[in-house]
Amino acid sequence: MPNAAFEVLDKVNSPEDLKTLNYDEMTKLAEEIREHIIKKVNTTGGHFGPNLGIVETTIAMHYVFNSPKDKFVFDVSHQCYPHKILTGRKEGFTNPDTYHKYTGYTAPEESDHDLFKVGHTSTSVSLATGLAKGRDIIGGNENVVAVIGDGSLTGGEALEGFNNAATLNSNIILVVNDNDMSIAENQGGICEHLTKLRNSNGQTQDNFFKALGFDYYYVSDGHNIEKLIETFKKVKDTNHPVVVHIHTIKGKGFKPAEENKEPFHWILPGTIDHLNDAPSAQSEDYNSLTKDYLLKKVSTGEPIVAVNAATPGVFDWNKDFRNKMGNHYVDVGIAEQQAVAMISGIAKRGGKAVMGVMSSFIQRTYDQLSQDLALNNSPATILVFWGGISSADATHLCTFDIPLISNIPNIVYLAPTCKEEYLRMLDWSVNQNEYPVAIRVPNEYISKGEEDNTDYSILNKYKVTHCGDTVAIIGAGNFYKLGEQVADKLKNLGINATLINPVFLTGIDKELLERLKENHKVVITLEDGEIDGGFGEKITRFYGSSNIKVLNFGSFKEFTDRTSLEELYQRYHLTPDLIVEDVQRVL
Amino acid sequence: MPNAAFEVLDKVNSPEDLKTLNYDEMTKLAEEIREHIIKKVNTTGGHFGPNLGIVETTIAMHYVFNSPKDKFVFDVSHQCYPHKILTGRKEGFTNPDTYHKYTGYTAPEESDHDLFKVGHTSTSVSLATGLAKGRDIIGGNENVVAVIGDGSLTGGEALEGFNNAATLNSNIILVVNDNDMSIAENQGGICEHLTKLRNSNGQTQDNFFKALGFDYYYVSDGHNIEKLIETFKKVKDTNHPVVVHIHTIKGKGFKPAEENKEPFHWILPGTIDHLNDAPSAQSEDYNSLTKDYLLKKVSTGEPIVAVNAATPGVFDWNKDFRNKMGNHYVDVGIAEQQAVAMISGIAKRGGKAVMGVMSSFIQRTYDQLSQDLALNNSPATILVFWGGISSADATHLCTFDIPLISNIPNIVYLAPTCKEEYLRMLDWSVNQNEYPVAIRVPNEYISKGEEDNTDYSILNKYKVTHCGDTVAIIGAGNFYKLGEQVADKLKNLGINATLINPVFLTGIDKELLERLKENHKVVITLEDGEIDGGFGEKITRFYGSSNIKVLNFGSFKEFTDRTSLEELYQRYHLTPDLIVEDVQRVL
Repeated sequence: MPNAAFEVLDKVNSPEDLKTLNYDEMTKLAEEIREHIIKKVNTTGGHFGPNLGIVETTIAMHYVFNSPKDKFVFDVSHQCYPHKILTGRKEGFTNPDTYHKYTGYTAPEESDHDLFKVGHTSTSVSLATGLAKGRDIIGGNENVVAVIGDGSLTGGEALEGFNNAATLNSNIILVVNDNDMSIAENQGGICEHLTKLRNSNGQTQDNFFKALGFDYYYVSDGHNIEKLIETFKKVKDTNHPVVVHIHTIKGKGFKPAEENKEPFHWILPGTIDHLNDAPSAQSEDYNSLTKDYLLKKVSTGEPIVAVNAATPGVFDWNKDFRNKMGNHYVDVGIAEQQAVAMISGIAKRGGKAVMGVMSSFIQRTYDQLSQDLALNNSPATILVFWGGISSADATHLCTFDIPLISNIPNIVYLAPTCKEEYLRMLDWSVNQNEYPVAIRVPNEYISKGEEDNTDYSILNKYKVTHCGDTVAIIGAGNFYKLGEQVADKLKNLGINATLINPVFLTGIDKELLERLKENHKVVITLEDGEIDGGFGEKITRFYGSSNIKVLNFGSFKEFTDRTSLEELYQRYHLTPDLIVEDVQRVL
Repeated sequence: MPNAAFEVLDKVNSPEDLKTLNYDEMTKLAEEIREHIIKKVNTTGGHFGPNLGIVETTIAMHYVFNSPKDKFVFDVSHQCYPHKILTGRKEGFTNPDTYHKYTGYTAPEESDHDLFKVGHTSTSVSLATGLAKGRDIIGGNENVVAVIGDGSLTGGEALEGFNNAATLNSNIILVVNDNDMSIAENQGGICEHLTKLRNSNGQTQDNFFKALGFDYYYVSDGHNIEKLIETFKKVKDTNHPVVVHIHTIKGKGFKPAEENKEPFHWILPGTIDHLNDAPSAQSEDYNSLTKDYLLKKVSTGEPIVAVNAATPGVFDWNKDFRNKMGNHYVDVGIAEQQAVAMISGIAKRGGKAVMGVMSSFIQRTYDQLSQDLALNNSPATILVFWGGISSADATHLCTFDIPLISNIPNIVYLAPTCKEEYLRMLDWSVNQNEYPVAIRVPNEYISKGEEDNTDYSILNKYKVTHCGDTVAIIGAGNFYKLGEQVADKLKNLGINATLINPVFLTGIDKELLERLKENHKVVITLEDGEIDGGFGEKITRFYGSSNIKVLNFGSFKEFTDRTSLEELYQRYHLTPDLIVEDVQRVL
């Protein structure tokens, strides 16, 4: 049940209600919103620091502007909770029974106040230029307001957006929510410049935004609702591009988050309840294996450079690791394109670059993978984390990396199935000088307990782990284990299936596939990602003119949105039982 | 034979030779280089204006720095001809017999002075940060010099690169070759800022480069070798990031190119010989059809917005068209990500956005296509030009757009085979409000002479243009005609093949494919692009568990480099004879 003690929030069900409040009430409202966010996010997990930091800004925006007539676009929407609370969705934050009712991102299907589904950074300004252009062509007088964090500012799409917004010659208001943090520390010249602006109360010379041509406003205290309202009133209905640079405190109102911003960017359920627990012993996983490997190579004098784009937490490249790596560690900020081009340059100069990236974010770099890296055959290593079907939000699906990477020439994309293969592949990749290599880091920690001595320089050589007949199961990466389960089921049916770990997602083992024809009728492929354009279709094509029947298993071409894995596995026939049924049907 | 009258150039075979010259000789050398470039490019075609503009800068760079120890990275390498001439490859420019010996882009296989194969813009700074980081980790003291044009500056990757280069804390020199032009006019705030810098001799307040943290030098006359050398000497061996902003004249030394920069960015063979010819009558083609359609829609009050990213020439969106479109035309500059996000925003606001893009450059926008456009189901239209196998440079292959686009959920990718289909599809796409649509504009103008009345809102419905048996040919887009040729050949062999125009590259017509099973043994797919991850594999997968044999034809997963179409068609079995042979083998 909602808590009845929230005297202001209880009265606010829409932006209109907000407009009747005075400053004191709005200040109280900010407190109440914060209290709910802290409680809700500690229960469900979610983006914590960014939302606490933007409460007053959001109140002021809704007080001054008239959403949904005026259009708000929240970049990456890590900071949209206060907006959701103020636009008819507060039950998702005040009532534990409906905590899961709304997504953690802006979602047009939830409310007219949300324009776009957004979850990748640095897009708000570009999207807003489109809204503004549409308005100008159709005729309209609404304000277009894009909110963007200082961390997101460094992404190429955002900078392209700023460059274009600056010369729109009509209303567009870019709210730079500057909390002096990306997910980790900010990186690069722009962020150092923002520090100068903050330190000079917006007065430092060589103003980046003015250089681009924007009218520039600075709000030094982004938690002072009166000042924020005053400033937004000044820029409302502007006839030209404006930047409102607001200094906010990430995690505002929750001291541990204010003091230690990185771990509070996004938190797991219960984090606050366990603040004082001793850190649990680090158990071995792919993150620890990777860190140990890189540190060891650095200690032996190898020119290793670990590169990532603002998401070190995805692979636990924590402060301790970063400190130990020293200048062997590079965080380029939110700038995936830069990361890929940079590792190509490092490799060209003889360095050993190892880039970590979450599957969903490598989507930012198709052209850099193709042109900067693959075309130049630069021997750098990319570790793709979290690749696979998941119950994530539609914006963070990790199912597309195989179609994306594996159809680019020259790249070798490897799918280890266990710790030992992973380490062997990583070591091979770092030591070789011939290919750009990507490794799809497994999602489940599996140790087979015996050293892997495979020579991965022999490209596209699959591993036959069990020789059988009639049915051959090719289980790639995460789904090798599923392959084992299918083989077991088939055994119970009297079928001694061949089991294959293909290792390589970027090519086919023609010799082996040819040999399978001798005593197999059906080949099935299992991949943890989209089937369309993926690994399995290459196998099917090989057998296209033969009598072998091929079934491809993986996810469909679709955006799913917080759909449970169980449901997805049913839908895609990714359980041993369903697979065996399908196999029996074609035998 | 080389012309012996070039007194200075004859003596210069490497950068070392250059270092013995005095200013007068170098000025003479610049003239001689220009003369060769004009003659050579007028013979072979190629990038004209950019190379004429950078002659003195290149001479000064090679005079002051020590390439290849010092590393030069030329952005997009539209401007690398003088560099090639000075680094042992002058015969490619002085001797008509060897005019074709070298590529039009930097090419490491040609010379140690070239670091990267480059042909997409805005990559030099990011690549250079990698070279610098590699140097710093390995230990080295060379200068890293990236050259980037003002037009390329607006690309997201370049801006990410600048942001990161600014805080490298070591030697990196970014030469901004500012000729006040992209391929067409420059766009956006940065370019307006550069104008202010030029007009103030580099002294205007709010300096963009200083804001980012660079040490900044301005050279007002980029054709004064002495001044250039003086400036480069100042920044050589710097221990921090430096920008050298040089004002040059695009097309310098060839008056028509100086006066009319856009058509002289890149010229066809013989352009100069026909300068005074009356313009030939515009014959109808896909460019003219598109322009006429857009102008007509604008004239009837439709909220059309034609968007492109700095390459209006690719689809002949010339000055006349731009003027007529007025504010219905947007060139975002080199900023493909911005373009895709912007059309999503325009569509969301009710505008009718039609973006033109060359197949090779849509590679810049995978994530924007997926997240900004497709996930939001924004009904915008993307016209993909030049998609198909070609004899282009490795950097400009247009074979990857089908795998790239067609595996993204929600997008409808259409492949018209003739004028009538193209116009019908374009009109359907512009008028509908349900899907993001891409249309692969055919490369060959074909009119079938009869109006197309297809309802393209019925997705994935293929067209059976001839009903036969035994063999079914699915010929997509450009290759529908090849399908007709194959059908004819088969007819001569007594096979009455079914011919299908699939229309949709993003889905399969299950009903039709199911029906084909009744009286067909072999299905072949023909697509003008990479097979891996493309259209045909989806068909093969459909038939994976049936008795139908499927053969997929298209290009292999490889970067080709100026390989003739004839050779590629042989290699890929894309001639009617070779296809029929393959079919006979599996019948």
